[in-house]
This record gives sequence, structure tokens and C-alpha cells, in this order.
Amino acid sequence: MTTPTLLRTVEDLGTVLGSARAEGRSVGFVPTMGALHAGHRSLMQRAADENDCVVVSVFVNPLQFAAHEDLDRYPRELEQDLVVCGEEQVDIVFAPSVNEMYPSPILTTVSVSPLHRILDGASRPGHFDGVATVVAKLFSMVGPCRAYFGEKDWQQLAIISRMTTDLSLPVTVRGCPTVREPDGLALSSRNVYLTDEQRTQATVLRRALDAGLELLAAGMRDPEAVGVRMAEVVRTASDAELDYAVAVPADTLQADGDLSGVVRLLLAVRFGTTRLIDNDGVDLSNGS
Amino acid sequence: MTTPTLLRTVEDLGTVLGSARAEGRSVGFVPTMGALHAGHRSLMQRAADENDCVVVSVFVNPLQFAAHEDLDRYPRELEQDLVVCGEEQVDIVFAPSVNEMYPSPILTTVSVSPLHRILDGASRPGHFDGVATVVAKLFSMVGPCRAYFGEKDWQQLAIISRMTTDLSLPVTVRGCPTVREPDGLALSSRNVYLTDEQRTQATVLRRALDAGLELLAAGMRDPEAVGVRMAEVVRTASDAELDYAVAVPADTLQADGDLSGVVRLLLAVRFGTTRLIDNDGVDLSNGS
Repeated sequence: MTTPTLLRTVEDLGTVLGSARAEGRSVGFVPTMGALHAGHRSLMQRAADENDCVVVSVFVNPLQFAAHEDLDRYPRELEQDLVVCGEEQVDIVFAPSVNEMYPSPILTTVSVSPLHRILDGASRPGHFDGVATVVAKLFSMVGPCRAYFGEKDWQQLAIISRMTTDLSLPVTVRGCPTVREPDGLALSSRNVYLTDEQRTQATVLRRALDAGLELLAAGMRDPEAVGVRMAEVVRTASDAELDYAVAVPADTLQADGDLSGVVRLLLAVRFGTTRLIDNDGVDLSNGS
Repeated sequence: MTTPTLLRTVEDLGTVLGSARAEGRSVGFVPTMGALHAGHRSLMQRAADENDCVVVSVFVNPLQFAAHEDLDRYPRELEQDLVVCGEEQVDIVFAPSVNEMYPSPILTTVSVSPLHRILDGASRPGHFDGVATVVAKLFSMVGPCRAYFGEKDWQQLAIISRMTTDLSLPVTVRGCPTVREPDGLALSSRNVYLTDEQRTQATVLRRALDAGLELLAAGMRDPEAVGVRMAEVVRTASDAELDYAVAVPADTLQADGDLSGVVRLLLAVRFGTTRLIDNDGVDLSNGS
């Protein structure tokens, strides 16, 4: 248990990281919107394993919420987040205000096309541009580093990886496995919105992914058939409303004929006003 | 006269600049598309005055040319460019191939709205997104530096300045005054396309700007009237075809009522297939 240094300004962040680098310390960066759970802890642990100095940012980024979304009710609990960061040996928590991040209206957008407009992007227009833009800005503020993202937000990870390559950013992007509840539900800060009944039914996402993986293991290579199978399983939960269920190449996220190589199954399901996503993958290269 | 180090790969650039920074040397960066003229020389001179190590990039960026534009005929003369850089005490010339800059198709776009779609952006769709994207990428490759751009491409300068602020890039952007021929024509790599007759008539851009400035000096504050006056002057050149002539706030480039504060006059004029731009400015804050 350490006490992380809490920084509120970009200037302070630059000063502290400048000193760390001058001492030859490598920097690991975990960008978050706070409400930290065991999934975030796994990112911090990996960052601490691989780097000398770990920075966690806590910033609920307005750019990535649409007008009707949950920006206002998104959980904010910085004191508790600081305790979690201390337990995970984080050195620096960077928690800027909205005004510190965006002192003037931001006119610049970073966009990764067509990844930004499919799947989650289709039901959340502007979301991934908001993510890519704030992550590009955070990467500039933090400087050369390794950055850690959860595979649970697979499309986000694909977009940030591509942006980093395309813009030659001095950052190594690392994806880390999804952390789950014992019954298979992927951890998410939005799980707190679920009623007890919805929480019980929410295990249907994991079960749908398993059904899709089984079909692939049995030799099915038609992406549509795999999607239909996952959708059938989701429909067994009475309160679940399916947004999408797809089987796609893990990098492009767009099916192009029969499945082969590294495949990802992705799901989005609504329970009332709460939208849950999950995914899992398999490499078909060495199989039937 | 020095002999600049010619670098062809991103990796070599990183190594050489890493060594320079390890020695505590500051970096000045002049991004160009080559075909270097006295305008570029003035940027290099300013960079050499203010920094320990000067990098000039020479890269004709396909992203910023539309399909019908002059990508193929754009002048390329690296050997001559190296001579110019040597004369101006440039330390490093970074001249990557298209494949080195874009080893895979670039899916990421950096866009500054609405600046990207007005004026030159209106007649060159995608142009400024291509500029902003390649400059963001070059800034990543070069790292923290001062970067120098000519005021001749005023809209480009406004877009890059805004992008740098919005994304918190570790770069100080400096605009440098336009260099002109004795008869007032702004230097441009595209001037070589002009026929003798067009070259003679091309002085009309400078004369139109002067007429606009005179009207402002006389107290006119209506942007439309200033634009009309400049257009009248352009029309006196028989081969000139006006694209736009505007008087606007120097940062937003969009008129919003009467002119006040720092104002820029901007012009685009075609001679045959060659498009010339020019601009000049005045601060109205301390006048009538």
C-alpha cells in the first residue's frame, strides 16, 4: 500500500513525469474514467510489473458521451479510486477537471474509419471519436509510455491500437484480458446500474459467447450462423434486448466471407437503459 | 555551408534525435514538401536562430492531394533541396518514402472543424484533414520541438496551431512572415507552373490585398465590402479566376458582424489550372 501522488494539472503531470524520465524510469499508463474495479486493478498490476512508474488517469470524458447518455449519472468516486490505486502501487493519479482538459472548446477530432462507425459506433455516434481524441490528448500529456487497456472494450482497443500505429505515437498499447465475476459477467463500472433481476439475467452475455465459441469449435465458419446462435441465447433472457451479436476478424471487426485466422465474437445487450458489452476470441489458424 | 544528414527512416530519425536530446540540444522542425525556395529558407533561418538542432522534412504527402490535383506533377528535386538545407545550416533532412510514412493504409484522420471545410477547404475537400494528419504524425516522429510554418498558408497555420493546442502536443508552433518576389508575388513551389503572361498578371493578388488593407485603413469595417473591393482588383487581371476574397478574424477565419481586432485578408485565385493563394493582416484594436 502506497499513497499515490494526486495531480490535478497538466503542468504538474509534465513536471513529475519529466523528473521520473530524467531518472531513467519507464512509464506505464492506465487511462480510466474512475469507478475503479478489479478489471482496472489487473491493468495497474500489469503496468506495475512492466514499468518503473505507473500513472492512472481518472477523467470522465464528456466528448465520448452523447447528449442522451449517462454522463451525469456515470459513477464518480475519486476518494475510493485513490484507495484502489494505493493498493495497486500506483505512483501518480492524474485527475484533471473538465476545464483543465478542455480550457477552450476542442475543435480537433481524431477519427479511425470505418472502425468508429460500426458495432458500438452505430448505436453510439461520436463515441469512438471522443475516445480516440481524448486518448490522443492523454498520450501527448503523458509522453512516451506503455499504455494498458482492457480487452472488454475490444472495439476501443482496436481503435486505439490503430490510431497509435497510424499516427506513429510513441506509445506501446497493451490489451489485457477481461476480468469476470464468478458467474461470468464481465466487470464494468456500469454493472452498478443493474437491478437484481437484470444482474441475474446478465450472465446471458457470457453464455452466448460460449455458445458461439462452441459452434466455431465444431467447425462452423459462417459468421452469420455464429451471430444467429449467440442471438438465440441472448433471447432466452426475458429482459435482454439485443443490440448486436457478431463473429468477425479481430482487427477489422468486419466479416468478409468465411471466418478464418484470429476471430472475435462481440455482443451488445440492453437491460432497460443499461447497455452491456462483452467479447471473446479464438484463433482458427491451427484448427479444422 | 554544412552537409545535412539525410535520413530515410523513422527509426533513424528517432535515434539521431534521441542522441541530440540526450546532449541537451533543442530541436527546431520545418516540415516541407520540398521544392525549397527563399520562403522555406526563412523558416530554416528562424529555426536555426532559436534551436540547437534543425530538422527539415521533405515529404510530398499524398493524403493532402485530391484525385484530380497535382500530386504527380508536384516538383520533386531532393538533390537541390539538400543543397539549400546545407546553405541554411540544417542538421537533418528527413525524406521518407510514401511506404515508410504509410506502411499500411492509414485509417486515422485528424480534423479541425469547421476550419477544415471553409475557404481553401471548400474547393479542396479533404486537403486540410490530410495536412493535419500528416503533421500530427510528423510531430510524433520528431517529438518535442519548435515547429515553423509560413504565414503564406494562413489557414494551414491556423489549423495546425489549433490542433496542437487541442491535442496538447509538445510542440510550439511558430508562424513566419511570407517571403515575396520584388513585385509582391508570394513565393510558392507552384509558381513554376505559371506561364510568363500568368506570372505577370499574378501580382494582382498582392495588389488586391493592398486595396483591402487601404479600405480598412480608411475605416471600413464591413467584411463584405472589403471582400468586394479585393474581388474588383482581381478581376482587372484578364486570366485570373477568383475563388474567394474575404476579410475575417485571423483565428476563426469566419466573419461575424463588423470587423474588429486582428483581421486577416485572404485570397485564392486560379490562373488556368494553377491555384495561387495569398493573405495579409492588420490589427484593428488600436485604430479608428
